[in-house]
Amino acid sequence: MIQRPRGTRDFLPEDMVKRRYLEKVLRETFLSYGYREVQTPTFEHLELFTAKSGDSIIEEIYSFKDKSGRDLALRPELTAPVIRMYVEKLQMNPKPLKLFYFGNCYRYDRPQKGRYREFTQAGCELIGYSSPEALSELISLAWNCLERAGLKDKSLKIGNLHLVETFLEKHGIKDELKRKILRLVDKRDYDSLRKILENKLSADELTMILDFFRSGSLDKLRDILDGVEELERFEKVIDFLGIFGVDKYEVSMEVVRGLEYYKGIVFEIESPRLGAERQICGGGEYELVGLFGGKEIPTAGFALGFDRVIIALENEGFVFPDERIDFYIIPAGRKEEILSKSVKLAMLLRREGRRVDIDLTGRSLRKAMSYADSMGFRKVIIVGEKDLREGKVTVRDMVTGEQERMEVMI
Amino acid sequence: MIQRPRGTRDFLPEDMVKRRYLEKVLRETFLSYGYREVQTPTFEHLELFTAKSGDSIIEEIYSFKDKSGRDLALRPELTAPVIRMYVEKLQMNPKPLKLFYFGNCYRYDRPQKGRYREFTQAGCELIGYSSPEALSELISLAWNCLERAGLKDKSLKIGNLHLVETFLEKHGIKDELKRKILRLVDKRDYDSLRKILENKLSADELTMILDFFRSGSLDKLRDILDGVEELERFEKVIDFLGIFGVDKYEVSMEVVRGLEYYKGIVFEIESPRLGAERQICGGGEYELVGLFGGKEIPTAGFALGFDRVIIALENEGFVFPDERIDFYIIPAGRKEEILSKSVKLAMLLRREGRRVDIDLTGRSLRKAMSYADSMGFRKVIIVGEKDLREGKVTVRDMVTGEQERMEVMI
Repeated sequence: MIQRPRGTRDFLPEDMVKRRYLEKVLRETFLSYGYREVQTPTFEHLELFTAKSGDSIIEEIYSFKDKSGRDLALRPELTAPVIRMYVEKLQMNPKPLKLFYFGNCYRYDRPQKGRYREFTQAGCELIGYSSPEALSELISLAWNCLERAGLKDKSLKIGNLHLVETFLEKHGIKDELKRKILRLVDKRDYDSLRKILENKLSADELTMILDFFRSGSLDKLRDILDGVEELERFEKVIDFLGIFGVDKYEVSMEVVRGLEYYKGIVFEIESPRLGAERQICGGGEYELVGLFGGKEIPTAGFALGFDRVIIALENEGFVFPDERIDFYIIPAGRKEEILSKSVKLAMLLRREGRRVDIDLTGRSLRKAMSYADSMGFRKVIIVGEKDLREGKVTVRDMVTGEQERMEVMI
Repeated sequence: MIQRPRGTRDFLPEDMVKRRYLEKVLRETFLSYGYREVQTPTFEHLELFTAKSGDSIIEEIYSFKDKSGRDLALRPELTAPVIRMYVEKLQMNPKPLKLFYFGNCYRYDRPQKGRYREFTQAGCELIGYSSPEALSELISLAWNCLERAGLKDKSLKIGNLHLVETFLEKHGIKDELKRKILRLVDKRDYDSLRKILENKLSADELTMILDFFRSGSLDKLRDILDGVEELERFEKVIDFLGIFGVDKYEVSMEVVRGLEYYKGIVFEIESPRLGAERQICGGGEYELVGLFGGKEIPTAGFALGFDRVIIALENEGFVFPDERIDFYIIPAGRKEEILSKSVKLAMLLRREGRRVDIDLTGRSLRKAMSYADSMGFRKVIIVGEKDLREGKVTVRDMVTGEQERMEVMI
C-alpha cells in the first residue's frame, strides 16, 4: 500500500468544512480592510529564500534541481515570494499596495502536533507606507481576523526591534553577539542567555538586560530609552490600537521574530490553548524589496498559521457551520418513469441552490435509508409510484423523524 | 533581480477575482450534486504516479529526493492521490462516496499558452457505483459546472474504451499494437495510424478501423458491435444525459484518454475558442483502487482544467463579477480627532461587511483623490472638520461623480 509522505496530511470532508469556513472568514476580513488577493507559485528559485537568511536555512527547505538544473525550493513562507512579485510586476502601481494571500508552505521539520511538513499560511503585506496609524491598522487586521473567526482566547504581544537594537548597542552589544542574544530571546531561553552574558557583563548590566526583555511596561521603556525617536512612533502605534478595536495587548521586547528580515515594529499572537506550538500569527516591519533589486520602500505584513488556528478553534469547542447535504432523493422502484422524475426533481432543487444527492444504485429502500442515516442528510425525499400518480412525494426530516407528503411539479 | 521560475505564474488581484469566481461556482455546483470536498498533499511518493504508467512518466514529473532519501513527486494530477487517500482512510465508509477537490498540479513541460508547469485542477471522483444513471449524472455534473460558470461554446464527446478494445480485438489487434494505436488516436494522428497498419491489414480492414474511430454514430456502432453487452449499458448512459439536462453531445470512439488507468466509459469537453490546448475537461471510468492495495470497487471521475476554463471565458468576453472596494475614507486634515473619527467610520462599515480602505498616509486631499481614481474605488468618503461639527461627511460616487453630504453616527 502506498501511503502519503511523512509529515503531510489528507483532509477529509469534515476537515475541509472547517478549513473552508476559516478561509472564508479570513478572506472577507482581508477584503473588508481593502486588501486584494494575489497568488504566487508553489516553488521559487532557492536563492529567493537564502538571499537574506543564508545557506543555513537550506536544512529546513524542500529544495531540488529541476530537469534543467535550476535550484528550486518549495516555498517555506510567503513574504519573500510576494515581495519578489512586487519587484517584478507592481513597483509602478499607486501606493499603498495592500495585498493578501493564501498558500501552502513547506518545511522539512520533525512532524508533531501543530507542525507539519506542508502547512497553510494566510497573510497580508502592506507596501508603501509605514505611518503609525497604518501599522496599527495592520495589527488590528490580524487581530480582527481571529476575532471574526470566533477565536476567544488569544494574546497579542507587540515589540520593536529598533528599540531592542538601540538598547543593546547602548550596552556595547552588536553583530554576532546581538544575533545570538536575539535567537535565545526568540526561544525564551533565558538560562542560556544568562550563561553567555555572565562573563561579558557586570551583574547589574545583566539584570538590566533581562529586565528589559521580560518587563512589558511602556513606562519602563520610557525610562530606559529616554529621547529615542522611535519610541515616540511606537507609542503612537500602541495608542491607535484601541481606536481600531484592539483592546487587549501587551508591549513586550521579547517579540524579536525568527526571520532575518524583520526590523522596527514586530508582533505575535498566541493561543494559550495550544501547547508548545502556540504562536498563531507573526508579523511586523521588514526589509526585502532592496535585496530583491527593487527601489526601497516601507513594507510590513503578517502571516497567520492557518492549521494552528483551526486546532485552536477546535480546542475551544468552536461550533463550525453545519454543511450537511439538504436532500437525498430515493426513487422507490426501478421503473424508468420514477427514476426520470426523481432525477428531474434533483436537478430542479440543485438549480435552486440546494445540495442534493440521489440514489442511483437501484438498491432497496431499506438500504438507501440506512445510507441516508449514516451520511447525515437533512431530509430524505421518497419518490414512489402511488405518490407520484397524485403528483406527490414523501419528505422525511431525518432530524425530527417527521414525515409528510408534499406536492411537487415534476 | 530574482525572477519567478520558468513556466510558473503570479496572479495579480485582477486575476484572482476571476479565479475565485470560477472556484466558487465550481464548488457550489459540486456541492449541489452532493459531492464533498477533500484535499491531499502537494507531493506524494513518486511510486504513486509510476505504479500504473511506468517510469516513462518521470520525464514529465517534478520528482526529487527529500533529506531522508525518499523519492517524492509534485503531483501531476489528482485522481491517483484521491484514490490513495480512499484506500488509506475511506474504504469502510458507506458507498457511494462522492468526493471533489481543488488542487495545483505540476508538469515539467514546454510552457505555452494554456500549458503551464504549475496549473490548477478541479475534479470529482465517484467511488462505489457504476450504474449507467450514475455515470450520466457524473458527466452532467462536469457539463453543468461549465454551464453555471457561464461558458457558452463547448462540446462534449463520449467514448467507450471497452467498445474500442472489443472492436480492435475482433480485428486481431491487442497488446503493444493496441496501445500504439490508442496513443495515435488520442493525438488524432491518423496519418501515422494508416502508416503503421498498412502492412498489417487489408485495405478494407484499414478503412473499417478508420471509420470506427471517426464516425460518431450510435447506429453504426450497433451494426459493428451487435450483441456486445457493454453497448447496451453505453446507450443507457447516453439516453439518460437528456434527463440530466445535457442536450448537446457527440458519441465518439476517438475519445481514448491519455492516462493508462482509464477503462469503459470516457469523456472529454473542449472549448473551440481555445487553440491547440482546447481540452478543458477529461474523465471516465478507471481502475486504481486494486493497484494501490485496496479492495476492487467501481470508480469514475473527471478533472477540469481550471486555467483553461478561465482563458476560454476570457476569450468569450465573459464579464466577471466586479469586486471593487466599496469605500475609500479620506481624513481631510491631520487633526487627531478627524483621524480617529475616520477610523471609527471605517471599522463601522467593515463590521457591516463593506470593503473599506482608509487613507492613513497623511497626504493631501488632491493626492488621495488621484489614488482613489486609479484604484477604482466605488465611493470616496471625505471626513472634514467643518462637516464633522455638523455630524456629517461628504460622500462622492466615483462612477457618476455625484457628491452629497450625509449624516453619520461616529
